[in-house]
Amino acid sequence: MLSNIDLDKKVDSKAYKNELAPLQKRLTALQEVIKEKNIPVVIAFEGWSASGKGTLISRLLYPLDPRNFNVYTMAKVNEDAVMRPVLWSYFTKTPSKGRLTIYDKSWHRAGMDSGAEKWNMSKRARQGFFYDANAFEEQLSDFGALIIKFFLHISKDEQKNRFKELQSNPDTSWRIDKADLNQNKEYSENLKIFENMLHNTNNPRSPWNIIEANDTKYATIKVYKTVIEKIEEKIKEAETSEVKNTFEDFDFTDSMPLEKVDLSLTISDAEYDKKLKELQGKISDLGYKLYKKRKSVVIVYEGWDAAGKGGNIKRVTEELDPRGYEVVPIASPSKEELNHHYLWRFWNKMPKDGHIAIFDRSWYGRVMVERIEGYARQDEWQRAYKEINDMELHMHNHGTIIFKFWLHIDKDEQLKRFKARQENPLKRHKITDEDWRNREKWNDYETAVNHMLIKTDTEYAPWTIIESNNKKFARIKVLEILVKKLEKELE
Amino acid sequence: MLSNIDLDKKVDSKAYKNELAPLQKRLTALQEVIKEKNIPVVIAFEGWSASGKGTLISRLLYPLDPRNFNVYTMAKVNEDAVMRPVLWSYFTKTPSKGRLTIYDKSWHRAGMDSGAEKWNMSKRARQGFFYDANAFEEQLSDFGALIIKFFLHISKDEQKNRFKELQSNPDTSWRIDKADLNQNKEYSENLKIFENMLHNTNNPRSPWNIIEANDTKYATIKVYKTVIEKIEEKIKEAETSEVKNTFEDFDFTDSMPLEKVDLSLTISDAEYDKKLKELQGKISDLGYKLYKKRKSVVIVYEGWDAAGKGGNIKRVTEELDPRGYEVVPIASPSKEELNHHYLWRFWNKMPKDGHIAIFDRSWYGRVMVERIEGYARQDEWQRAYKEINDMELHMHNHGTIIFKFWLHIDKDEQLKRFKARQENPLKRHKITDEDWRNREKWNDYETAVNHMLIKTDTEYAPWTIIESNNKKFARIKVLEILVKKLEKELE
Repeated sequence: MLSNIDLDKKVDSKAYKNELAPLQKRLTALQEVIKEKNIPVVIAFEGWSASGKGTLISRLLYPLDPRNFNVYTMAKVNEDAVMRPVLWSYFTKTPSKGRLTIYDKSWHRAGMDSGAEKWNMSKRARQGFFYDANAFEEQLSDFGALIIKFFLHISKDEQKNRFKELQSNPDTSWRIDKADLNQNKEYSENLKIFENMLHNTNNPRSPWNIIEANDTKYATIKVYKTVIEKIEEKIKEAETSEVKNTFEDFDFTDSMPLEKVDLSLTISDAEYDKKLKELQGKISDLGYKLYKKRKSVVIVYEGWDAAGKGGNIKRVTEELDPRGYEVVPIASPSKEELNHHYLWRFWNKMPKDGHIAIFDRSWYGRVMVERIEGYARQDEWQRAYKEINDMELHMHNHGTIIFKFWLHIDKDEQLKRFKARQENPLKRHKITDEDWRNREKWNDYETAVNHMLIKTDTEYAPWTIIESNNKKFARIKVLEILVKKLEKELE
Repeated sequence: MLSNIDLDKKVDSKAYKNELAPLQKRLTALQEVIKEKNIPVVIAFEGWSASGKGTLISRLLYPLDPRNFNVYTMAKVNEDAVMRPVLWSYFTKTPSKGRLTIYDKSWHRAGMDSGAEKWNMSKRARQGFFYDANAFEEQLSDFGALIIKFFLHISKDEQKNRFKELQSNPDTSWRIDKADLNQNKEYSENLKIFENMLHNTNNPRSPWNIIEANDTKYATIKVYKTVIEKIEEKIKEAETSEVKNTFEDFDFTDSMPLEKVDLSLTISDAEYDKKLKELQGKISDLGYKLYKKRKSVVIVYEGWDAAGKGGNIKRVTEELDPRGYEVVPIASPSKEELNHHYLWRFWNKMPKDGHIAIFDRSWYGRVMVERIEGYARQDEWQRAYKEINDMELHMHNHGTIIFKFWLHIDKDEQLKRFKARQENPLKRHKITDEDWRNREKWNDYETAVNHMLIKTDTEYAPWTIIESNNKKFARIKVLEILVKKLEKELE
């Protein structure tokens, strides 16, 4: 594939000047349309060392308004990055609607040995990475983003010459290190690695664009033309496309998980006190072990209004070292958050290795409240199940331990609790009109929850339904599950 | 001071239990009031190694809702932190209204040798740091935050015993390093260093609370009592305090900088083309030098509507490597931003060493639009001049190079440009009703700008008025100033 490409293509100076000016003008104009149509644009530059990524990025951005783009150099993997799943670094930098993000070196590096080493990836994480990368691109495409991926290709001789030139100048010699030189020495091996990467991540909606880069002028013109063509296509698509069709989902009616829950389960006060103390002691120790072993933990709390999430979380954290965890309360999204992919705000809160993040409500809002209240279109919440599974798989492959709890109560119990809150002047503020409105839609929510529990219950991130009519029973059950799995994982 | 403190104070187990329960109950209740009254609370734990900071933080937080606080361990200074001014790490983590932030190890460390080394601080930065720390606390206090600072004090023998105990257990031995042991060896020298720090940062509105910590039970009770007392005081203050008095400012009428500006200055097209090319080439080289020398640059653009900020910025960035700069457009603040100190959102955007941040409008909105439109109270914008000077001094001491440009046009020129924009269908969207409304307040803005130019024109962060009736003249002038100062700084 790469080896068949004709790298002798050239543009002479005169043709370059003649061609470039109108392309620049066109791109300036298109940038305004991108803003107006709220299209987020992601451009990734990948390729050989010294293939001219920096130069081409500069040239491409020349006619653009610098207030409307961000450029990120992804070569160095710093501590914050290496202590999180690879896609954290990329997802948190995705553009909001109408803006451009340019990545100098793309996420695909993590699927190749050299990158996997920098990211300190396990074999599992490394092998699963191209799947994760494709899922990432699919999510962004579905969100409406335009993704343009460039691979800058140069020949072995050309790379050698460029290294020599860079090395001969004291102002640029620092830019070449041993890994670069090795890449040239083992050019044909690396060619195969690149080809493999390109084949595995060449998606219909985000294909690779190979740029013959021996001649920088030729490469510049081709990059411009590609970007313009892709943006024009995207604008046309945005103008003509109907809301996507929803698909016919499986029939779930046979197996609704919530129907099988035994809400009569209770625990005696004496047993509760004894077990609470014992389990909290264990959790506290496990917290330190997590820190020492640099494992991250994500705990998701979902459940009916008044199911007791706050009190349950409190019992989990009470004896934990507060330096090791963070509770993340999720409210309705801000304007900035709504201008990004809905998973963006959760990626921003993902814990680093050694730490625990407890989500009080979570990304599952997409398939519950957003579904029921119509904040997400049907095609959006329908594809969210896979998006969420993919995100959790990526975190799992990184080594994150994931817990997901559905705190379940029945409708009578909820009414009792609502009334009790209203009668207590200290707790009255916890009950709002919205709670009563949600209650009226109990059946709709029940269906949505059942679907969620079925479709996002995975081996690597399973749901546990917590019988919560009795709050004490619920707290002990959560603690027991946490302790059991963490002990096993930290053995 | 520290040496006079009686470290033998103790609380026995029975008294501890009896005292603690009601204190915990009281604190739980107070937390609700903090939320309701929108008071941001900052609690810092400082003190000797092994003085029990972690334990005391855990115990203090025990009765609190974990969804309402964040704990940050500030011991390790990572790459992102060391490449920015010290206060960046602390300011970006300040709580929003109604929330608590607990810092395990406080900002004051940077004013002591051991901390200054970790932060890689210059002598200038280190010596100015206590001033910066006090200014930081003053800013937060003025914003309405409650700041509680604890210094945990233990004796030499007690510290030695604790080290021994920690070392004897393989689960905890990793927590003690050579620096800790040295602190004990040189206990009396360190005592003096701590005393000096405490004296220099003991502010009326954020005083230090010394905690005798040889006995952890005694320390726990005292920490609880102090926190409760301080919160109660603060709530009372919030209930009774009137809007603060504004102060009588200097009389400026004699020396209004904008009156002296010669707006007839122009440049010929030929000279413009020649100089632009030459200066852009230099700026591009200087960008690489900045990167290599790890210097950060902040460029602030302020000016009248239609003064040409966008085009001016474009000429500065055009030939810069896009990986080395970021343009930060400033719009009206989000809800989250309004719940923080107004400088918080700007701190979040400060460049790291080796990078350039260009602000298209900035923190100076506080003393212009927020003053004129009444978004800030008089006392708020009046104290903003010093707050801004303090922030810029701290950045300067860190090594950041600061430029501030006021793009100046006259009222006729603005009208001409507004009309031209309205007549151009491609630019019509750039003119809004707000622009016309602002124009009606030209004289008010002129006064505010004059005050700003006088009161925030410092040696370390000077203002330059850019005569911008002629856009080309303005662009060349900005480039010349950038090149001249950067060349000098990078010599």
